[in-house]
Amino acid sequence: MEFSSRIIEQAVNEFSRFPGIGKKTALRLVLHLIKQNEQDIQGLSGAIIALKDQLKTCKECGNVSDEEVCNICKDQRRDKTLLCVVEDLRDVMAIENTSQYRGLYHILGGLISPMDGIGPEDLNMASIEERIKKNEVGEVIVALSATMEGDTTGFYLSRRFKSLGVKVSSLSRGIAIGGELEYADEITLGRSIASRVPFE
Amino acid sequence: MEFSSRIIEQAVNEFSRFPGIGKKTALRLVLHLIKQNEQDIQGLSGAIIALKDQLKTCKECGNVSDEEVCNICKDQRRDKTLLCVVEDLRDVMAIENTSQYRGLYHILGGLISPMDGIGPEDLNMASIEERIKKNEVGEVIVALSATMEGDTTGFYLSRRFKSLGVKVSSLSRGIAIGGELEYADEITLGRSIASRVPFE
Repeated sequence: MEFSSRIIEQAVNEFSRFPGIGKKTALRLVLHLIKQNEQDIQGLSGAIIALKDQLKTCKECGNVSDEEVCNICKDQRRDKTLLCVVEDLRDVMAIENTSQYRGLYHILGGLISPMDGIGPEDLNMASIEERIKKNEVGEVIVALSATMEGDTTGFYLSRRFKSLGVKVSSLSRGIAIGGELEYADEITLGRSIASRVPFE
Repeated sequence: MEFSSRIIEQAVNEFSRFPGIGKKTALRLVLHLIKQNEQDIQGLSGAIIALKDQLKTCKECGNVSDEEVCNICKDQRRDKTLLCVVEDLRDVMAIENTSQYRGLYHILGGLISPMDGIGPEDLNMASIEERIKKNEVGEVIVALSATMEGDTTGFYLSRRFKSLGVKVSSLSRGIAIGGELEYADEITLGRSIASRVPFE
């Protein structure tokens, strides 16, 4: 793709570094920006810079936060003896949306992935045991994606927590609610037969 | 969608103002940015600000440009007597990629669209007649999208240019090269039958 303007080319290159955004989409975004007024441009660039300058990491759970300790960790009404280990902020948001969980979170910031050279030491795991002891946690829920990396990380954590005498559980796997059987993949269907539950 | 961080919420809101980017995609982009280093963040926000601060509009053709007059208008090897009217920068890039056109361009910056309240006075049209006279243009190619707005704008321009005694042509419409007949829509197929051409 050839650009007549160096400024546009640079902006397109910057935008095409986002995951899932190619040169054509980046150009569409840049052309949209060109039509915006000064204030909108300042708003966008200010918000981007604030992500680096103002955003903090919660020193308790590792989640991104506006302050030293995030709103969830600060909330006195939440059950400190229940800890849910997740990959990132999106998982926290997804679980919060269910309104089914009132414990605290621990955000790993990634998953163990030998293929990508990511080991336990690259993740926010060092302080988990300390938190479990400090908060007298009774159960750790490992809520990770049902992928190779998620399973590896979950298995690793469950082994690590064994010596602490804490109950470790994982999310149940199976057919999604509302999902039709014929469209379920074989692995999920196979797993849901193996881990079948008695009718209530 | 509820955010625990105001800074993230603001960044997500800014990104979701882009066309075709919803809250979920915006969040994905923001989470990507959080993981970037200082330099990458500065690069992106700098490129965005440069779009407003440094980018100019070519005073000849209306295209975005790094300088007062764009590279195409400055190029002495191009045929000044041929003028191609297009909607925006992307169309210039698409036509330049064909290597079939060596004339100049005139960028409207939009199309006439009564539904959106966009009339001729909102577009870069005021200087076209002057350019046609100054450059002694012999033919104007109206290269606009084959949509209602594109056709309306083309019709309007062809009427305006009539008094100038200049040849006005539009892009040929028909089956795309490599396109299979059975997948062509009825309107395109109908038009390509009506405007059939003799075998060479």
